[in-house]
Amino acid sequence: MSEKRHAVHNGRIIDEKDAVLPITLREVQSNFSVYEALRVIEGHVVHLGDHVRRLEESAAVIHLPLSKVDWQKEIDALIEKDHIVDATMRILVVGTKEPLWFITWSTLLTYPDSYYREGVDVTTYKGERFLPQCKTGNLLLNYLSREEASRQGAFEALLVDDEGLIREGSRSNFYIIKGNVLTTAPDDTVLDGVTRISVLRAARELGYSIEYRRPEKSEIFSADSSFISSTSMGAMPIKAVDGERCPMDRDKVAAICALVRKWERE
Amino acid sequence: MSEKRHAVHNGRIIDEKDAVLPITLREVQSNFSVYEALRVIEGHVVHLGDHVRRLEESAAVIHLPLSKVDWQKEIDALIEKDHIVDATMRILVVGTKEPLWFITWSTLLTYPDSYYREGVDVTTYKGERFLPQCKTGNLLLNYLSREEASRQGAFEALLVDDEGLIREGSRSNFYIIKGNVLTTAPDDTVLDGVTRISVLRAARELGYSIEYRRPEKSEIFSADSSFISSTSMGAMPIKAVDGERCPMDRDKVAAICALVRKWERE
Repeated sequence: MSEKRHAVHNGRIIDEKDAVLPITLREVQSNFSVYEALRVIEGHVVHLGDHVRRLEESAAVIHLPLSKVDWQKEIDALIEKDHIVDATMRILVVGTKEPLWFITWSTLLTYPDSYYREGVDVTTYKGERFLPQCKTGNLLLNYLSREEASRQGAFEALLVDDEGLIREGSRSNFYIIKGNVLTTAPDDTVLDGVTRISVLRAARELGYSIEYRRPEKSEIFSADSSFISSTSMGAMPIKAVDGERCPMDRDKVAAICALVRKWERE
Repeated sequence: MSEKRHAVHNGRIIDEKDAVLPITLREVQSNFSVYEALRVIEGHVVHLGDHVRRLEESAAVIHLPLSKVDWQKEIDALIEKDHIVDATMRILVVGTKEPLWFITWSTLLTYPDSYYREGVDVTTYKGERFLPQCKTGNLLLNYLSREEASRQGAFEALLVDDEGLIREGSRSNFYIIKGNVLTTAPDDTVLDGVTRISVLRAARELGYSIEYRRPEKSEIFSADSSFISSTSMGAMPIKAVDGERCPMDRDKVAAICALVRKWERE
């Protein structure tokens, strides 16, 4: 792996340190941008089609003029340039008149095995994402809720909406398992996570029926298990909410996670 | 005025083109930032104390570690360097571990006299600002609502909250005048605009009583006049909402605007 990282900027390979945005542009000041976070495993980018589709959908919702880009080709050029094997990659498109787009990468984001074996702590945070189905640069709520979780020693924050119901995490989707029912918030209230698609497919394959409904926090304590999912996490069991232990069935979550990860390599 | 503009970045004068942010920083990606827009008139920055106070308050709310900066000195250095007479200036602080801060400037933002004489068109847009009292970089709602207003040929968008009540504009505060009562949304539901402080002071001086209440859109049509305010606009009368003419009393608004502008020069 080369010492100095590169990036792609509007079709050109650049030094990563030149992947910058002028603060004088109104679109930069206003987070008029969309993005995707991807996994590269053994030199192969995972579920690129799903990510590109979501990028285009996010752009369409906010009227961001996204030009046609051959993302596979651009990503492959960066993989080759920096001899990337495993990585977390990020596509960013800023909606200036001629959109500025970038592909950057960093060491593959992974988590200790203990997070999957013992579960993670989460907190709750009052707030609703603006345009929940869009992956835009408007991320302050996500940032603040996650920082508050960190201050409380937790791994993730669950976002609770105005009606007191749980929709999703600051950087994850959220699920409850009870019997053979898996409950998660309806598509139009959350980010349609690329990993969420796999989680729901895995759950069906394992015999669960899916209930699309925003759960109350109290339901976590009468369920068999709850968990979160994201591109980086896969599926990760929750062991406590706001400092209070909750039921956890790590094997049930692990079975879902195994399928999610298996399909990534197909 | 010199050809090439400069900026201040953490106490150093730099070329404006070097006022950039690395897209690989999580704080940059997440708009973990606060800002202020200021007016420089005849080489003198207007209401700096109020702007700095709000900058510090915004930073405190989101736990952004804002170091002590002598903003007057830094701004004066830039005014001297670029021989600035009149300008719109912007302070931006990004909350990385060592906060990155910038002062940039552009030609003074002003509006045609006709906007004040004939009034402006506004539209309504459903949406509530996250952390309404804070001036953060989380501005996508402001951007999108204003773009939608532009597409409809309007100058500004009024943001309507979940209860259907008007709080503020995408980049302005909002007021209704009826008899000797001026109605505006309560402090804790809107941005505490620096110009809003002056507008309310002017209104009191002119004999109005202030009613802090979020009005319904329909009230605009039974009022004497409605108007918006901001640092750049001063006070500007509204002549139509969502394409429908509304009552407008430009003289009453002009009287408030004159006091607001007079105090800027004191």
